[in-house]
Amino acid sequence: MKSKAIFYHAGCPVCIDAEQGLALSLDANKFNLEIVHLAENTSRINEAENAGVKSVPALILDSTVFHINFGASISDLK
Amino acid sequence: MKSKAIFYHAGCPVCIDAEQGLALSLDANKFNLEIVHLAENTSRINEAENAGVKSVPALILDSTVFHINFGASISDLK
Repeated sequence: MKSKAIFYHAGCPVCIDAEQGLALSLDANKFNLEIVHLAENTSRINEAENAGVKSVPALILDSTVFHINFGASISDLK
Repeated sequence: MKSKAIFYHAGCPVCIDAEQGLALSLDANKFNLEIVHLAENTSRINEAENAGVKSVPALILDSTVFHINFGASISDLK
């Protein structure tokens, strides 16, 4: 069974680099990847914060949060 | 042909989480992954710095540096 991966971003250049370079490089046999644009889906900001996301881009793998470089603080997306 | 991936770390808990959770989740069909422990291989610190690594853990994919969370500044490893 595949694990769940969620990539949260805000459309910023740092986010796009992380999406194209890193998130899309995950083993697709291991993960079902969901990509969430928080600036366009502000209703999911609380979900991201509750999962431990402090800034974007961030990647959640099996409930572990990995903050990748720094694009924007999640508090600036509200 | 596979791309080169280098994961630089220093053995810290944040580093190990990133190695196990993220670096080892890359698509092995796309990348040849090398894992470098900079605290044990200080001779490679300059190489990492020249590649743009500011802190560990960091993952380089196709010459792009992704700093993942924050374990230690590379300047503290010297």
